Amino acid sequence: MEKEALYQLSQSLQKWVLEAAAYTRSQIKQPLEITTKSGPNDLVTNVDRANQVFLAAKIKGDYPQAILVGEEGTDAVPDDWESGLAFFIDPIDGTMNFVKQNENFAIMIGVYDHGQPTLGIIYDVMADQLYWGGPQLGVFRDEVPLLLTDNPPLTKGLITVNTKMLVADDLNLQRVFMHSSGVRIYGSAGIVFGQLLKGNLCAYISKLAPWDIAAGRVLAESLGFQVLKFNGQPISMTTKEGMVVAPAHAMNEILAIMQQK
Amino acid sequence: MEKEALYQLSQSLQKWVLEAAAYTRSQIKQPLEITTKSGPNDLVTNVDRANQVFLAAKIKGDYPQAILVGEEGTDAVPDDWESGLAFFIDPIDGTMNFVKQNENFAIMIGVYDHGQPTLGIIYDVMADQLYWGGPQLGVFRDEVPLLLTDNPPLTKGLITVNTKMLVADDLNLQRVFMHSSGVRIYGSAGIVFGQLLKGNLCAYISKLAPWDIAAGRVLAESLGFQVLKFNGQPISMTTKEGMVVAPAHAMNEILAIMQQK
Repeated sequence: MEKEALYQLSQSLQKWVLEAAAYTRSQIKQPLEITTKSGPNDLVTNVDRANQVFLAAKIKGDYPQAILVGEEGTDAVPDDWESGLAFFIDPIDGTMNFVKQNENFAIMIGVYDHGQPTLGIIYDVMADQLYWGGPQLGVFRDEVPLLLTDNPPLTKGLITVNTKMLVADDLNLQRVFMHSSGVRIYGSAGIVFGQLLKGNLCAYISKLAPWDIAAGRVLAESLGFQVLKFNGQPISMTTKEGMVVAPAHAMNEILAIMQQK
Repeated sequence: MEKEALYQLSQSLQKWVLEAAAYTRSQIKQPLEITTKSGPNDLVTNVDRANQVFLAAKIKGDYPQAILVGEEGTDAVPDDWESGLAFFIDPIDGTMNFVKQNENFAIMIGVYDHGQPTLGIIYDVMADQLYWGGPQLGVFRDEVPLLLTDNPPLTKGLITVNTKMLVADDLNLQRVFMHSSGVRIYGSAGIVFGQLLKGNLCAYISKLAPWDIAAGRVLAESLGFQVLKFNGQPISMTTKEGMVVAPAHAMNEILAIMQQK
C-alpha cells in the first residue's frame, strides 16, 4: 500500500474510532444490556455490538472490498483473509472493565494487507490516549512518536500474564513471574499494549483471539517487540492461541523457562 | 478533634502532598538513586526519602506533638502511637511503578487520633486524582463526594490479590479468584484504594504494612468497606499483616473461603 493511501486510511480509522468512543462515553451512565458468551465473565453489551456495526459500516463504505473480522461480528477469520485488505475490529476490548469500572477499556482496529501487519489503532477511551501507526508510518501516542528504548532482562521488567494460566502454573508461568520484577494485570489487551508501547511493561503472556492481538501486534512489532507462540513459532492470526509479546532479551528468557521440564 | 480543626488539618496535608508531588514529577526524568531494601523488587529512591523528610518537617512544624510513622523514616510504629495524633506517611507508594512506569504510584498520609481513623489522603500523582476525607468530613475525589453504591457478591466483583499469595494458593486464594469476576493487579496500594473508592474493584486481599493501609483504611471504612485480618479480627496498625478490604457481602464470602480446609 502506498504511504499516502496508508496515511489516509489511518486518518479515516482514527476518525471513526473517535466517533465510536464518543458514543461509548455517552452510554456509560445508561443501563447496559449485558449478556454472557463463553462463561459468566465473558461479557458483551449492546455498546460492543453497536460499535461493531458502526465501524464495519464505515469501513465497508470507503473500502467495499475489505475483509472484516470482528469480536462481535464475523467471529471466524475467513480462509481468504490474506487475499486483500483485512480489518480486525475489537469494538470494546475489556468489556468487563467497561461494565464494572467504566474505564480501562479500548477500541481497536488492526489492518493487514495480504496478511502483512500494516496499521494498528488502539484507543484507550476514558484516558483519551490514541496509539496508532505501523511499520511504514512509525508508531505514535497521539502526536508523540514512540520508540522502544529498552530491552531489559526479565529480572528488570514488569510483566502481564493470564491469571488462569498463572494460577495453573501452565508452562512454568509461576517461575517466569518469580524471575520478573512483578506482575501487573489490567483486564484489557488494549490497555496492556498501551503500557507495553509506553515502556511501562516488558512482556505480555496470554491466550489471545485474533481481534485481541491484531492492532497491538502491528504496533508492537513496529517498535521492535517480538510476538511469538509459546513454542517460538509465528502466531497464526486465525485462532485464539497462546502468545508472548516482548523485546528480544526477555522473549528468549521467557521461552526458555516455558520450555523447561 | 473538632470538625473545623480537622478540615484545617486536611487542607494543610493536601497542600503539602501536592507540593511533594510537584517535586516528584520534576524528578521523574532525572537519574534516580535506586537502592533495594528487603529484596531485589523492594525499592527505595532518593525521591521517596526526600518526600518523607519534606512531609515530616511540614507536619512537625504545625503539629510539634505529632507522632510520625513513615515507610522511609521511623519504620517501627512507636508503642505509644495511640497516645495522641499519629501520622502514617507513605512518601511514594508503588516505588517499582514510579521507577519502571513513571506513573501508577501515590503519596499517602493517614491520620489517627488516639488510635481512631480520622483522616486519609491518597494522591495518584500522575493521574492528578486526590482522594481525601474521613468519618467526620466524608470522602471525596478532588471535590466530588464519593458514596459506596454497591455491595456485590464476590461473583460480581473484580478483586486485587497479592500475587505471591495467589501463586502459592495461600488460604485458598485461588478459589477466591475462581469465584470472582476476575483479578486486577496494579502494584500500588494507593492506586488500588483509588479503584476501590471509585467502585472499580470490590475487594483487596494482601499483606500490608501500617503505612500501606493507614490512609486507605480511613477512607474505605468511611465509605462502608470493612478492613479485617484474614481471621476476621481487627487489624493491628503496628505490623505488616494480611488483611481483606471489602464491603460486607464479599467480605463474608472471602473470609469463609479462606477458612475452608
